[in-house]
Amino acid sequence: MNTRFLDACRGLPVDRTPVWIMRQAGRYLPEYRRLRARHSFLELCKNPELAAEVTMQPVDILGVDAAILFSDILTPLEPMGLELDFVPGPVFGNPVRSMADVKNLRLPEMDEDVPYVLETIRILRRELADRVPLIGFGGAPFTLACYMVEGKGSRAYPILKKMMYRAPEVYHALMEKVSGMLIAYLNAQVAAGGQAVQIFDTWGGILSPSDYERYALPYSTRVIAGVRGKGVPVIHFVKGAGSMLDMVKRAGGDVLGLDWQINLGSARDMLGPGFAVQGNLDPTVLYGTTQIIEAEVRRILQENGGRPGHIFNLGHGILPDVPPENAAFMVECVQRLSQMR
Amino acid sequence: MNTRFLDACRGLPVDRTPVWIMRQAGRYLPEYRRLRARHSFLELCKNPELAAEVTMQPVDILGVDAAILFSDILTPLEPMGLELDFVPGPVFGNPVRSMADVKNLRLPEMDEDVPYVLETIRILRRELADRVPLIGFGGAPFTLACYMVEGKGSRAYPILKKMMYRAPEVYHALMEKVSGMLIAYLNAQVAAGGQAVQIFDTWGGILSPSDYERYALPYSTRVIAGVRGKGVPVIHFVKGAGSMLDMVKRAGGDVLGLDWQINLGSARDMLGPGFAVQGNLDPTVLYGTTQIIEAEVRRILQENGGRPGHIFNLGHGILPDVPPENAAFMVECVQRLSQMR
Repeated sequence: MNTRFLDACRGLPVDRTPVWIMRQAGRYLPEYRRLRARHSFLELCKNPELAAEVTMQPVDILGVDAAILFSDILTPLEPMGLELDFVPGPVFGNPVRSMADVKNLRLPEMDEDVPYVLETIRILRRELADRVPLIGFGGAPFTLACYMVEGKGSRAYPILKKMMYRAPEVYHALMEKVSGMLIAYLNAQVAAGGQAVQIFDTWGGILSPSDYERYALPYSTRVIAGVRGKGVPVIHFVKGAGSMLDMVKRAGGDVLGLDWQINLGSARDMLGPGFAVQGNLDPTVLYGTTQIIEAEVRRILQENGGRPGHIFNLGHGILPDVPPENAAFMVECVQRLSQMR
Repeated sequence: MNTRFLDACRGLPVDRTPVWIMRQAGRYLPEYRRLRARHSFLELCKNPELAAEVTMQPVDILGVDAAILFSDILTPLEPMGLELDFVPGPVFGNPVRSMADVKNLRLPEMDEDVPYVLETIRILRRELADRVPLIGFGGAPFTLACYMVEGKGSRAYPILKKMMYRAPEVYHALMEKVSGMLIAYLNAQVAAGGQAVQIFDTWGGILSPSDYERYALPYSTRVIAGVRGKGVPVIHFVKGAGSMLDMVKRAGGDVLGLDWQINLGSARDMLGPGFAVQGNLDPTVLYGTTQIIEAEVRRILQENGGRPGHIFNLGHGILPDVPPENAAFMVECVQRLSQMR
């Protein structure tokens, strides 16, 4: 069994740096686009055979050291009562705007409400047969609240911010409910066979450090505490949080995800040996020449300086117009260069 | 004469913290929208009487401690040969994609090619009659290159990044030319009467620290060096640069602009007494109640801890749907609370 990824999550020594790619099952792969031509994104998410097939593609094609469940962070919000559509960005027909809306949200029964997620995990564990570990995931409470309140993606999330600042009791009631849902959701993924869990806080970085501390950190901390101790490592990724990593680390988690706007070496110095790290390559570097890609992989490995607990990854999801051969070359560089040390 | 702003730029003691607002002349003001209903954005920029009128509005309405020229960072690119339109975001009909395109860019003669910018400054200096100082501005070379190459705003700037990574000779030739233009442009503004200069690097934060060092820092450093020593303070604002301020400070400048994603106190500790700072209030806080606004102003003043060289401002431009009375209340809070210390 390839345990590089899980060992690195726990800060254990590994033969070479493990590598996977956020959104590794996705549009940049022609094999994915062929399936997507016949099925909507939500159809792929809800059909366990197809979701498993898509999850396996990058494992077979790129030789990454971990598989990650093909799904979306918004998946568990549909059974809470939100009408989700992708046009192509996510849109909710009935966003959460009042205390009555929050009260109307139901807590899903995972076995009944998202059976396809759990079944996908079960299929994948059989198909993977311990080739590489399987990562489950969910959104962080703040990021889910962003979409639930705004009703769609945004840059400044004005409706959500107005709720935070003008109706904090509604905001906090929503965050309580979402946090409870996430704990149940992530634990169901682990019970079904997930071998690690990643929490994506895509929008946490839009908050000032003091607002992050007040409005996001307590809920992320609660979710992480509710999943840890189940025997699987927890990866916590807050995009745009490079200047408040000291705050983010207080949420707990075994591994902190790093985007590319912070130097990995400085981040590790600040975090200390208690945390593994994952990420750090600018996704647009995969637009570059092989020389550029190899130089950047080498630079990041050097910044890590051989410390245990490093998982190579991009600093955000792979971009849909990246040539797949560049992604494969990046994976090959990590494999080759991290062994040479 | 109100010299609070200029004194604070130079780290000198002031009677209270000076305050102005990025994009203070803009859509959130009904007085601005009334003019905008009859004139396009570019018409306002190119008509010195109208541009001066718009510039004066927030000085009269809010009582801010500085005026800033009403213009756009893209204004000097039109006479370089680019066809600029706003739809409503900026679009260039003929983006720069090749070495031939770079060679075809001409260096504007400021007096002939942007006379309206210089005339606006002259009118404003007369009208302001030293009530408050007048700030001129330009984009940083990297941010201008983003728009020139991509042809429009973007999140990841894929076309620009491909040029950086695959045709660096074209990229660097472009940056050389843009930097030279900026030095002439900013110096012309100072000669016309600009009393401080702000350089806006709206997109510098999309670069990793090592790419910032290689692809942006040398050119920003050159521009700042080309303007300093003319007797006016230079403010350098790189949005999203909280985790690489140690790099950004190497570009020079008297004042570093801070967005809201970094704690002002930590930033000042890191920068040391050699730099003044400006900014730091999350623009969405102005969606909040007066209690929220006052608490945030107080928090930021406390983080500064009475150190000289602090200019209060938002961490980015004011949002168009902010109630003007909230902006006025924020200004009033800074005036009241910074005196009480």
